[in-house]
Parts: sequence; structure tokens; C-alpha cells
Amino acid sequence: MRGGARIGVVTAGGDAPGLNAAIRAVGRGALDAGDEVIGILNGWTGLLEDGGHKVLDEDDFSGIVARGGTILGSSRTAPLNDDEGMSRLLAGVQRLGLDALIAIGGDGTLGLARRLSERGVRVVGIPKTIDLDVGNTEVCIGFDSALSIVVDALDRLHTTAASHHRVMVLETMGRDTGWLATLGGLAGGADVVCIPEFPISIEEVAQRLDARRHAGKLSSIVVVAEGAHIDGLAEHLVPIDEAGHPQLARRAIGEAVATAVERRIGAETRATVLGYLQRGGAPVATDRVWASRLGATAAKMARTAGPDAVAVREGHVVPSSLAALTEHRRLVHERLYDLCRVVG
Amino acid sequence: MRGGARIGVVTAGGDAPGLNAAIRAVGRGALDAGDEVIGILNGWTGLLEDGGHKVLDEDDFSGIVARGGTILGSSRTAPLNDDEGMSRLLAGVQRLGLDALIAIGGDGTLGLARRLSERGVRVVGIPKTIDLDVGNTEVCIGFDSALSIVVDALDRLHTTAASHHRVMVLETMGRDTGWLATLGGLAGGADVVCIPEFPISIEEVAQRLDARRHAGKLSSIVVVAEGAHIDGLAEHLVPIDEAGHPQLARRAIGEAVATAVERRIGAETRATVLGYLQRGGAPVATDRVWASRLGATAAKMARTAGPDAVAVREGHVVPSSLAALTEHRRLVHERLYDLCRVVG
Amino acid sequence: MRGGARIGVVTAGGDAPGLNAAIRAVGRGALDAGDEVIGILNGWTGLLEDGGHKVLDEDDFSGIVARGGTILGSSRTAPLNDDEGMSRLLAGVQRLGLDALIAIGGDGTLGLARRLSERGVRVVGIPKTIDLDVGNTEVCIGFDSALSIVVDALDRLHTTAASHHRVMVLETMGRDTGWLATLGGLAGGADVVCIPEFPISIEEVAQRLDARRHAGKLSSIVVVAEGAHIDGLAEHLVPIDEAGHPQLARRAIGEAVATAVERRIGAETRATVLGYLQRGGAPVATDRVWASRLGATAAKMARTAGPDAVAVREGHVVPSSLAALTEHRRLVHERLYDLCRVVG
Amino acid sequence: MRGGARIGVVTAGGDAPGLNAAIRAVGRGALDAGDEVIGILNGWTGLLEDGGHKVLDEDDFSGIVARGGTILGSSRTAPLNDDEGMSRLLAGVQRLGLDALIAIGGDGTLGLARRLSERGVRVVGIPKTIDLDVGNTEVCIGFDSALSIVVDALDRLHTTAASHHRVMVLETMGRDTGWLATLGGLAGGADVVCIPEFPISIEEVAQRLDARRHAGKLSSIVVVAEGAHIDGLAEHLVPIDEAGHPQLARRAIGEAVATAVERRIGAETRATVLGYLQRGGAPVATDRVWASRLGATAAKMARTAGPDAVAVREGHVVPSSLAALTEHRRLVHERLYDLCRVVG
Repeated sequence: MRGGARIGVVTAGGDAPGLNAAIRAVGRGALDAGDEVIGILNGWTGLLEDGGHKVLDEDDFSGIVARGGTILGSSRTAPLNDDEGMSRLLAGVQRLGLDALIAIGGDGTLGLARRLSERGVRVVGIPKTIDLDVGNTEVCIGFDSALSIVVDALDRLHTTAASHHRVMVLETMGRDTGWLATLGGLAGGADVVCIPEFPISIEEVAQRLDARRHAGKLSSIVVVAEGAHIDGLAEHLVPIDEAGHPQLARRAIGEAVATAVERRIGAETRATVLGYLQRGGAPVATDRVWASRLGATAAKMARTAGPDAVAVREGHVVPSSLAALTEHRRLVHERLYDLCRVVG
Repeated sequence: MRGGARIGVVTAGGDAPGLNAAIRAVGRGALDAGDEVIGILNGWTGLLEDGGHKVLDEDDFSGIVARGGTILGSSRTAPLNDDEGMSRLLAGVQRLGLDALIAIGGDGTLGLARRLSERGVRVVGIPKTIDLDVGNTEVCIGFDSALSIVVDALDRLHTTAASHHRVMVLETMGRDTGWLATLGGLAGGADVVCIPEFPISIEEVAQRLDARRHAGKLSSIVVVAEGAHIDGLAEHLVPIDEAGHPQLARRAIGEAVATAVERRIGAETRATVLGYLQRGGAPVATDRVWASRLGATAAKMARTAGPDAVAVREGHVVPSSLAALTEHRRLVHERLYDLCRVVG
Repeated sequence: MRGGARIGVVTAGGDAPGLNAAIRAVGRGALDAGDEVIGILNGWTGLLEDGGHKVLDEDDFSGIVARGGTILGSSRTAPLNDDEGMSRLLAGVQRLGLDALIAIGGDGTLGLARRLSERGVRVVGIPKTIDLDVGNTEVCIGFDSALSIVVDALDRLHTTAASHHRVMVLETMGRDTGWLATLGGLAGGADVVCIPEFPISIEEVAQRLDARRHAGKLSSIVVVAEGAHIDGLAEHLVPIDEAGHPQLARRAIGEAVATAVERRIGAETRATVLGYLQRGGAPVATDRVWASRLGATAAKMARTAGPDAVAVREGHVVPSSLAALTEHRRLVHERLYDLCRVVG
Repeated sequence: MRGGARIGVVTAGGDAPGLNAAIRAVGRGALDAGDEVIGILNGWTGLLEDGGHKVLDEDDFSGIVARGGTILGSSRTAPLNDDEGMSRLLAGVQRLGLDALIAIGGDGTLGLARRLSERGVRVVGIPKTIDLDVGNTEVCIGFDSALSIVVDALDRLHTTAASHHRVMVLETMGRDTGWLATLGGLAGGADVVCIPEFPISIEEVAQRLDARRHAGKLSSIVVVAEGAHIDGLAEHLVPIDEAGHPQLARRAIGEAVATAVERRIGAETRATVLGYLQRGGAPVATDRVWASRLGATAAKMARTAGPDAVAVREGHVVPSSLAALTEHRRLVHERLYDLCRVVG
């Protein structure tokens, strides 16, 4: 089939730098092949509502490659993950007359896409997450940009740490995996890195920092992933919100580490929580390149039956499957974590 | 007098981008005139300790203009602010045989320098603070760099806010004055700005955001200075730390505003606390320029008796006095705050 | 008069970062006061053509503060500078029914605006040029951003110069004045700075670099303004284009200095011409702040008779006149140039 | 063998961001294993001279990961590539008592390392070049940083192009291969990309730009690699220097394209030559990560006999050989170049 298809594109889940580069590549690739491109607005919810979509033409793609966020808007997928939600989504796909739907997102989005695919919708998934934890792909759109923000923050904190002989703690995103913290710590020069994959006790964190001080290194940097497994920290994780607002509680880990370290080693210790800054702003060059390559390949694949996802494997953009992308989380391996300890 | 003087230079208080540019200008200016330059290490405490100083030569100044922090180290001034501390500092100045001492710092540092000056030490103060609130000067070293970090953060938050139709709250530094928040909000596009100088109620904040939503603007940005005066927020400022750790409590304001706004208008609202990121990293060009000009002028003035501070007044580097710099805080004026509302 | 006026806004001459911030402030300021805002497209030529203007509303100003260039487009003013051009412009102003016209530009643009003002059009000029050479104002929109690009380039060239023990020559913009080169050299660490205001011979340039090598400093940085006055360089300025294309010839100065230096001192010497990179991209924070303040004040002034320009004098935005802004070029003064030699 | 080896490390050829990250990883990896680390200064020439090396300890590696250039210095390898040069290098290795030598560089450096390896020196090569054209590796240290500078420049040129309805030509590095131009054009949004691998005529370049103008797109961006194969351009490549200075002539290609395009389509066209800016400054995060991983693996390999190079293959750091890295240049493949045309 050459051209004539009606291809939808949706971005869902947390926003990430590079989404617009992917949308541009999907769109221009499809238009170049004579297809029609339908942008689904505000994540999956756009499939359910009148006015939830928009025909995209060349002008919509001009100049967006450098912009953060997503021109289509996004939203969380959770409310649609049951049978009723699925039926409504299927009805939406039919109502819009889509021949194929390209879904750009992380874990949740790709899982939902997989269920649609299993029910016969022609779907092509593209992995996107600043956590880099989608399975069976070496690249996730957004990670390199988020990493650059983490490293830039560490460069800044180093100068303050050195000037004041302080310990500076940086909390990064990473609820289930520690890619941002590990590679950020490696590239930005962290003395201790705490992540979900490798448990560490607060005692050991403190001891390693203390050993540095005794060796005459008066400033230190600690990187803590949001979901780091740190034994002995519970007492410092005081509830912040009576109602137990989960996000606030989760955020407290960086502060908790700082408090615990300061008590143990006596050195002035300060925490910084990067939070949403890791998601925003212009994508770095490599994110734009991979997003473009993934998007263009997805557009090509959407026109015919076949594998329902793209991924980067062994340095190449290759057809993959939503089953492969969602079957497990990609975890930081031990050799890399050790490297961080030796070199970081 | 041409040359031959022994000139000390000290950086104290919170570190800020541009300190090294000032140290370089002081040092090269002094060396060029035939003077000797003594770097006081780790803030005022370097005056008290053996090994607390270092003779600086040309090599020490090479390549430092682009680096954040201070090559001399810094520390807080508070413990030295009583009579005993003052006597020890005077003894230190004598012990090192300093003909003059150039002190680069904010409110606290300049106040201490003033007391030394009143006791007969030849001092020249240079204003430095990312808060821009030193009196009677248009420029404080570090402010432009901190401002650029605030604006960069706002640029990032805009893309996330727009993609998710959220309210994003950014908490900036500024315990007593709102310069970073006001000029950051103006340059970065904030819809509401909350600062210490102009009280606002949380109700009004919520109403203005709600009005935007009703006008179809689904994302909004709020900038909150650390010390903003916001009525009706107390209930959200739950104590974070049993021990009442003051820093944690102070930091809570951004989160508190986010929680309060979300409850009132129902829109998803998220907070980001910039914290120490505002102090670190390479100085922007304008900070380097002014730091160089202030430092070189201070070095010239140090060689002879006369005014005990430099400042920028009416666009020029001019002799000033520590009395003038410390007599009041420079506050955001109403016209500028209003401009932010109309244009931001 | 409160509201009801019809205010045009035009950007002309070379583009510069911060123009959109000024347009935003003019526009929002005017809309807030109940005025109507007419954007003149593609510089002054928009006044002459059907379809050369556009009514601007709030949506046009959203998100533009961070973008480089000008949403209105620009063009050079020269062809309109005679009597016939002037008559056509006046006719354009009448045809559009403009009560006032806000003109944002440099030397050429403000000169044309002045002639319109003299013929009775209510004009308010706003100074913009990356050269910083408009008379009687301390701020020109675009300069701080261009300066940051020069300094960023110098930071990069330092690492290459040091790694290879080279002399690196950077050519900046500045045909008639050397602000970018001088302040860039001061903030970026240049060993020799060549500008139009202070003649220097190529011999002296070479001698100063040679002296550095003999003192063991194996790498050096030279900054050369496009219009630098360098005696003895003529032989190296070979014609590049048979037709004598002036732009190419002008650009050659950086290369010519590099060739001449390499021949004289034997050190590997390389040139980089920054060119258009100095004009583009997102404006830095300070440019956004001043552009916003100048624009908002101009919008206020446009509504009533009075001074026909705004400027920054002694650190404040103040009413000024097109006569004052265009009566002379602001030149680098000797003290600043000397500072560069001692500190840079 | 655990520890006790004496490992040399040398950086040669053009400098690139990320070299210091590799040196840090080599050094810390070696020190952690109990080896001794000898830094060879100023490229291979350091092996020939008294004082051409330096024992490196932990302090030498602190804080360098964020710095551009190479703390060891560099130089070109050509003069040492004959038999006599080789003998002198071998003598140098013996004189220093090196058990192994880690050589970080591009084509020329790795070729020289290969000859040393063939003569029995224990060498481990690490690929580095901003051109990305070393064979059989997916990653070369420095490329991602150079790419980010190209993309940043394109972002800037877009705003100027759009404001003035111009064609902007950017000349990038790439004498033999077009990776920087191709991926830069893809990520930065180029309308035409000219590289060595795929010949194009200046007529076709002009036609494609003209077609854009007729379609109402008034600004365009062209990216030209330094060594692009462009038919019909010869007449515009006038000799710049009587002596035929090759570097100047090579640089002229961007200007030549601009001149030729302007003559053919009449649109204002301007050229920018990025030059040395592509080599300098702080490395981006991904360069730091890969440099760290390559360096640490090289340090491990150096301790025992085995493969004489590291590379990135299929997304992993793996042992490779200098023969594999130097047997051919990695070229841009057609599918990627086409992607650039469709999506860029």
C-alpha cells in the first residue's frame, strides 16, 4: 500500500523532551508517503471526545523539533485501563476511521496500546520515558535530555559544595529504576549514588562520605533516585501531609538523606529536588535524532500489518513488539553501578 | 602610592556565580599595580587560623573567570559578629600585615566589614548577593546568573504545564525581597508572582488562576519567593520536622501554595523548589563584566584612604560606603511588580 | 486618554534576541489599557503593502518571550530613507489609521522614525542593537544575548587553545564600535582585543602574544571586532571575491589577523568568525527584562503626546528622544578598554 | 595480575569534548586496581622528550569530567608516522617503563597506535573524533557534544532566517564524512544537507530552495559539511590566499554555497562557518557517560594481554581491535540521508 492510510498519533503519560521531534517525524513521514495524519489531543482521552482530534498538516510540524513538551497534549492513562475504558477507546478509533494508531509513551501508555493491539487495532508503539526503563530497547525518547539536566544540576552543585565544604544531595526522578541517578552520577561526578536496584544502608552512605572527609575531601555529592532503596532511613521520612499525599512523601527522600547524613557525620548537608525540571525544555540533539528515526520508522510500519512497536536494539531502529517493550523493566546492571563507584 | 601594598581579599556568605571574576579582577588589578595579593580562605574564619590564607599570583587567576563558586572558599559570618569575634578578626588582619582588605559579600559580610572599617581597618566592600537586595547599588554580583537559572527553569516548566494543562509553581530564593521572583516572572512568563514586599492572599492567587482557566488558558505558572507574604496559607504550612528544622519549613512554601491552589481550583498543580541550583555553575556574561569592573575599581581604591565600598549607581561603578550599602534593603518597587502582572 | 488608541508596532533592521519580549510588552501593555495593537509586518515595508499588517491579540503574545527573532519579521530600512520613501510611509500610517507607531530598532530604524516624528507622526522609538552603540542609552535590546554568545564561544575556544598550545582568534560583530569585543574579551578572558575605537598595529598584537609565549603561556586568545582598526594588516586582507563583495571582505579580518600572527610569531593560529550566531536564539534573562520594561513604557507613552523615544539612563527606563538616541554613536571609553588589558 | 602495572595514557589529534572524562575513567580505574598512571603530555611528542610525562594521582582527576579539551595536551601525529618516528616512540615507551599505553584519538592516532601494537607494545585504543567516522564502533568520544553545538547553531539560525526571510547556510566539520551535517540537519531542521557521501549539484540545491519559496516558505536552512561533494560549485571556490593556504580554501565551501544560491534564486543568503566552536567547551552528558565507560574498560584490558582496542558495538562497550577501528571509515548510509530529506 502506498499512501491513502489515515494514521493517528497520540502522546500519553508524563511529557518528555523529544515528543515533538517524534510527532514531526511520524507526520512528515506519513505525509511524504501520501497518508493522512490525525493528532489525538491530550492523550488517550482525545479518542473519547468530540473535538479530541485534529488533522495535522505540514505547517503543524514546522519549528516544533526544538520545543519541549508535546503539541498534542498528554494525560495519564490509568482511568482507561479497564474493560469499559478499552471499549470506549476502540469505539473512538472506529469513529475517527483510523487505519493505524501510533502511540508514543512509557510503561502505562505502551501497556494500553498493547491491549488495543490485542483487540485488533493496528498500533505501533514508540518508547518514551525519562526513566529509560522500558524493556528491550536501548533508547527511550526523553532520557538523554533529562540526563543532561541532571548533569547540569550536578555541575552547579559541585561549585557550591566546594565553596562551602558541604555535602550536597540531589534527588532525581526514578521511582523503579536508577538510570538517571546512575548515569547522572557517573557523568556529573557523584561520590555516592542510591538507586532502587541496589540497596544501601544510610550507615554506609554516611561512612563513605565520612571516609572522604578524613581523606581531606571536604565536599561531596550524593545522588538519590526518587525510589532509592535505603535501609535505615525510615525514621527520617516523617509524614509531610496528614492526608498522606503520596507525591509529597515520595519527594522527601532527598531531604531525609540530607538530614540523616548531617546528623551522622556533622558536615553541613543540603538537598535539592530536581522534580519537574527533568521533563521540560528543549530536547538535546541525541533525543531529537532518535525520536526522528523512531518516528519515521513507525510511520512506515503503520501502513502495513506487522510488528506493533519500534525499538532501538544494538544501535539500530528495529521493529519490535509491545509485548517485548512491556514484559519487564530495564534495570541498571551491577557492572554499571560499580563503575559509578570507581569512576564517579 | 604606587604598588607595594599588601592587599587581602575575602569572600563570605553564600556562594554566587561571579565571585571568581571579582577575585581575578582584584588580583590582576593589584598585581598590575605592583601590590601583593593575599587570599583569605573559607571566609572570615581564614583570618583566625594558621594556614587560613594564601599568597595569590597570576597563575591562580588563570581560567577562573568562567567557574562558579569561589576559589577562596566561603563561610557564614554570624559567629564573628560580637566584640570578641571582632577583636580576633582585627588581630588576624594585623598578623597578616594587610594594608587593606577587600570583602566581597552580601548583607552580613558587608555589615561585618563595616565594623572592621569603623575600627580603622582599610576595607573596601563589594556587593554580592543573588537576592539583589543590598542597598544603594544597582548591581550585586551573582544576581544575573541566578536570574538566568530561574528563567531557564520557567522555560522548562512552561512546556510541562502546557502539555498537561497544569498549574506549575516555582519557588525561588528571596527571603526578604522578591527580585528573583519578580524579574524571573517577568522574563519567564509567570501568571502570578508572590513576594515578600506585596502581600497577597491565597484566595486571590487561586482566583486569578481560576479566571485564566475560565478564559480557556489551561496552564498557568506561579512564582513564589521563599519569603513571600501570602495570607491564608498557614494551614498548609504543616511542620515538616518535629525539631522544627528551619530550612525545611522555609522550603515548604512552594509546596504549600501548590496544595492550596489544587484544593481551591481543582486543577492539577505541582511545585518545584529551585534551591541551591540558583547559586551554582558558571556565571553569565553580565555578572562577569560587572564583577570584573567592581573588582578592578576596588583594587585601585584599596591602595589609598577613602570610601570603603564600591557600587554601581546610575550605570557606573562608583565609590560608595559600607554604611550606604548596609543601611537598608533594596526592595521591589510597586511599578515593577505591577508590570509583572500586566506583561508577565 | 484611557484606551481607544490604535497603536502600531514595527521591528526593523537586523534581528536580535529580545524583540519578541518587547513586542509582548508593547502589546499587553496596550491591550491592558484598552488600546488596539497593529503589528507591521517585515519591517517598514509592511506599511507600504496591502496585507502588510496584522491586528494582534492576546494569543499572539503567548509564549513568545523566550523566542529569538521577531514574530513581525524585519527588513533593512535603507530604500525608504529618501523623500519619496518618507511620503509612502506617511501614507501608510494614515491608511492604517494609526494613532501612534512604536519603532524598535537600531541606528537606521531610529533615524527613519525620527524623520517620521518630525513630520508629525506620533512615534515612540525603542533602542535595539547587538552593537550597543545607540547614543544616550545604557541598554539596547539584544546586546546582553549577543554578549553571552561571544563569551560562550570564548569559553569553548579556551579549551581548544589550551589543549593545542594555539592562538585562537575570534571575530565578533561590531563594525563601528567594539562593545561586544571589549566586554566579551573582559568576561571571556581575551589576551588582546582589537576594536574600531582604539587603533593597534598588527606588530603590537604579535608582540603581546609573543611576550606571553616567552612567559610560558602557550595558548592565547585574541578578540577582533569586525571593524577593528588594525594598522599593517592591509596586505593580509586579500580580496576574496573578484566582484569585491563587501560582506565577504569585511569578514576576512579575523582570518587576516590569524594569518599575520602565525607568520610573525610562528605559533599555530586559527580564526573563528561568529557571524550570525550572535543574532539568533532565545534571549537571555536580562534582555527579556529590559525589553519588557522598555516596551511597556513605550506603550504608555504612545497614548499621549510627548517625548518620542524611551531609553535606559542611570539604571532607569526614562522618556528620551529620537534626536538624543541618534545624535552620536556610543563608543567604548578608554578606561574600559584598559581594564580589558589588565584583567581580561 | 592485580595491580602493579605502569599504564600510560595519551591523547592525540584534534581535541574533543569528553577526553578528560576518558582520562578520568582510565586513571581512576587503574588506581582502583593498584596500577600506576603516567600521563603523556602534548600527544605522542610527550613520549620523545624529557619532561614529556607526568605521574597522575587522584587529585589530577578531580573536577575534570566537566571540562573540555584535554588536561594532557594534544598534538598532531603526522611527523611520527615513518620508521624513524616509530623507533623513537618505541624507545620512549621503554624509557618510561610502560607496561601498557592507552591511546585516545581518531583515525591518525589509532593508526599510529596500531603500528606500535604490531611492534609489540601493549596498546589499548579508544575511539575519539567529532566526525564519528572511526570504523566498527557506534560511539566516538566528542561527537555528541559537537552535534549539540551544530544543533544549537541551527536553532539560532532559524530565528534569523525566519525574521529576515533568508536562506542561512551552516558549514560544519566533516572532511570525509557527513555525520555532523546529517544528524545535525535532522535534529536542527535543515532543508538541504550536503555531505561527502552523496554528491549533489549546486543546481539541485538551488532548485529545492526555490521550490520552498514558491510553496510560501520564505526562509530555509542549508547544512554543508566541510568536505561536501557539490557539483558545479568550483567557480565559486575562488582561491582565498595566493599561497593557496589549504585551510582557508577548505573553509570557503559554506560561503561558496551561499554566493551560488543567492545568484541563482535571488533570495538573501548568508553563510556561517562553525569551525573550532565544534571542538570546545564542556562535554554533553552522553559523551561523558560513554567516555567513562570506554576509559574504564580500557584500563581493565590494559593490565593483561588481549584485544588492542575498545569500541561500542550493539549498544555495549566491547573489546575490539585497532585493525577493525582503522580498516575503513564509517559512512553515512543512504537510509539516514534520505530520512533527513523527508523529516529534516
